[in-house]
Amino acid sequence: MLLPVFFNDMVDDYWHLRQHVQLWDVSVERQVSIKGKDTARLVQMMTPRDISKCQIKQCYYAPLCDEFGGIVNDPIILKLAEDHFWLSIADSDVLLWAKGLAYGLKLDVMIEEPYVNPLAVQGPKSDALMAKIFGDTVTKLRFFWFDYFQYKNHPFLIARSGWSKQGGFEIYMDNQDLAHDLWQHIMRVGQEFNIRQGCPHAIERVESGLLSYGNDMTLEHNPFEARLDKYVTLQHDTMSLSQSALRDIQHQGVSQRIEAIFIDGEKLSGLRYRWDIKNKHDVICGYVTSMAYSLLFQSNIALAMISATATYDDLYVTTTDGDRKITVSPNFPFDLPSKS
Amino acid sequence: MLLPVFFNDMVDDYWHLRQHVQLWDVSVERQVSIKGKDTARLVQMMTPRDISKCQIKQCYYAPLCDEFGGIVNDPIILKLAEDHFWLSIADSDVLLWAKGLAYGLKLDVMIEEPYVNPLAVQGPKSDALMAKIFGDTVTKLRFFWFDYFQYKNHPFLIARSGWSKQGGFEIYMDNQDLAHDLWQHIMRVGQEFNIRQGCPHAIERVESGLLSYGNDMTLEHNPFEARLDKYVTLQHDTMSLSQSALRDIQHQGVSQRIEAIFIDGEKLSGLRYRWDIKNKHDVICGYVTSMAYSLLFQSNIALAMISATATYDDLYVTTTDGDRKITVSPNFPFDLPSKS
Repeated sequence: MLLPVFFNDMVDDYWHLRQHVQLWDVSVERQVSIKGKDTARLVQMMTPRDISKCQIKQCYYAPLCDEFGGIVNDPIILKLAEDHFWLSIADSDVLLWAKGLAYGLKLDVMIEEPYVNPLAVQGPKSDALMAKIFGDTVTKLRFFWFDYFQYKNHPFLIARSGWSKQGGFEIYMDNQDLAHDLWQHIMRVGQEFNIRQGCPHAIERVESGLLSYGNDMTLEHNPFEARLDKYVTLQHDTMSLSQSALRDIQHQGVSQRIEAIFIDGEKLSGLRYRWDIKNKHDVICGYVTSMAYSLLFQSNIALAMISATATYDDLYVTTTDGDRKITVSPNFPFDLPSKS
Repeated sequence: MLLPVFFNDMVDDYWHLRQHVQLWDVSVERQVSIKGKDTARLVQMMTPRDISKCQIKQCYYAPLCDEFGGIVNDPIILKLAEDHFWLSIADSDVLLWAKGLAYGLKLDVMIEEPYVNPLAVQGPKSDALMAKIFGDTVTKLRFFWFDYFQYKNHPFLIARSGWSKQGGFEIYMDNQDLAHDLWQHIMRVGQEFNIRQGCPHAIERVESGLLSYGNDMTLEHNPFEARLDKYVTLQHDTMSLSQSALRDIQHQGVSQRIEAIFIDGEKLSGLRYRWDIKNKHDVICGYVTSMAYSLLFQSNIALAMISATATYDDLYVTTTDGDRKITVSPNFPFDLPSKS
C-alpha cells in the first residue's frame, strides 16, 4: 500500500494543515486484531510498556520489541474489550510475528487483519468540524481515548489521535458501504472550515519529532536509542519478552541515540540514502534518518542517530550538496537555538 | 523496496528475454537466514513440504503455511549447511514469523536478514554468458542446485534458478564492494549475447503460470487452491505445523482453485483491482488475480481463482472494458485452446 506525499505542494499543504483542517486516507495504518482469552498476555509479551492499566476505549502508544530489545513496530494499541485489542501498526508486519508467537506459546487467541481503513481528520479546526458531523460529544474525547459515534446508524470508532501535532481525530472506517458517503459528507461540511484532502506531512512530522518506523528506528534499534524510554517499563516485572534484554541495555547504556539537528546553509536536496555524520577528525559518528527544510525554523532540520561518544559541537554531515555543519538541538525535538 | 516493471517497453523486453539474455537486480528477494542447532526443525515446521531429503547446495521451492494451512510465503529454500538455511522470500515478512515461532518454541536458532542482494541472469543465452564469466563448470549446475564460483577471489553463491521460464541463474550477491564491478563486467561480456538490463516480466510470468505471492495467493489461500499440491507432504508425518490442517482441507476438498484463463476480445486495460468472474446466472464464482495480454497467444490471458462448483463453459469476467467471455485452459497454465 502506498501513501501520498503531498496534494498541492509541500509548502502550501504544510501551512494549510497548521491553520485549517485536512482529511487523510490513512488506510496504510493496518489493524492487527487479537481476540480471545490470552489476548492481554500476548500483547503484554510484545511490548515493553506495562499495559495492565490500559482501560477499554483507551489508546496506548507502545513500541513492540523482540527478545533482544529490537523494535519490531511502534503501533497504537486500542483496547476494544478485555479480550480484544487492535494494534494500529506502522510499517512492518506485526501480524506474522504475533501469529508466530501465539502458535509457539500455544496461546488462545485469534489474530487477523480486519477490513478497517482509518481516516484522519487533522488540523486546528478538527474539533469544530467533527462536532458538526458527530455532535458535540465527540469533542469531549480526551487525547488517546476513543468512543463510538453514529453516522447513518453505524457506530464508528473514533479516537483523538493522528500522525501530526496539529490535533485531530482518527475514524476507524469499518464500513465499506458508508466510506465514500462519509468522505463526501466530511468534505462538504468541511467547506466552511476550508477543508482539503491531505496526508501525513514530512516537514510537520520531522519538526514535531514524530519518529517514522523503518526510517528513524528499525529492528536494529532499541527503544532507548529512539528516545522511547517512557514507554518502557522496567521497574516491576511485566510479562514482556523484551524486558530482560532492555534491562541489560539500560544498565550498559546506549551507544547511540536519535537527536534533532539543524543543518547549516541553503535548502538541501531530498534525502535518498543515509547521510553520514562525522566529527572534526572525519570519523563517522552517526547518520541522518529523516530530513526536511523546516518552514517554522527556515532551516534544514533532521532526525539523526548519533553516537553517545560524539562531541556535539564539532559535527558535520556529508550531504548530496556537500559537507554542512550541524547543530544538535539541546532539547528533543526542536528548540530554536539560543542566539547568544 | 521497489522492482521495475519494464525497461524499454513491455513487448520489446518480452521478446528480448525469450531470445537473448538479461541481467536483473532482484534485491527485493530478501534472504531470511536461519542458523543453529534447531534450524532444520524450524524450517520443517514452517513448510508442508518434506525437506528431510534436501541436500546441501540444493534449492527447494516450498510454500510456507500457518497452522490453518494459509500460505505465509513461497520462498526458495537454500540449504547452505546442515544447520544453516536461507529462505529467499516472496512479498511478505517471513523474518518476523520465524522469530515469533522460534521464541515461542524456545528453538536454538539465530534468525536475521543478511545483506544479500540477488542478481538474476535470465534468458536462453544465460549459459553461454555465465560460462565466459565463471567458467564452464557453472553450466554443469543442475536446475535448483547451487555452488560457489569465483570472481576476483570472492566465492559467489550461484544457483540455476530465476523467476522466468527462459532459463538462467541467480547470483546471491553478498559482496557490496564487488557488486558494481561484477554488474559492469557481466554487461560488458554480455554485449556479444545482446545483453540488456531487465526485470521479472509480467507477461512472461503469467504465460508461464508463475504465481505471485500477494496477487495469486495470500494468507487467505491454501496450497491446494494455489495448485501447489506437489509441494505438500501428507503421506507421512513431518514436523510441519500446517500438516494437520492441510490433511483436513485435502479430505474436505477445496472450494476454489487457481486457473489459467483466456479472455475474449480486444486487448484489455491493466488490472487495478480484482475483476469478478460470473456465470450465466450472473452469480460471482471467482476473480482474476493477474492479467496480461499474451504475445505468445495473441490473447488476453489471466490467472483466476475460480469456485470448484462453477461450470467452466458459461463464465464471463467483468473487466474495466466491459464484460468478456472467458475460456478456462484445460491444463495449467496454458495450452493453446483446441480449434475444434
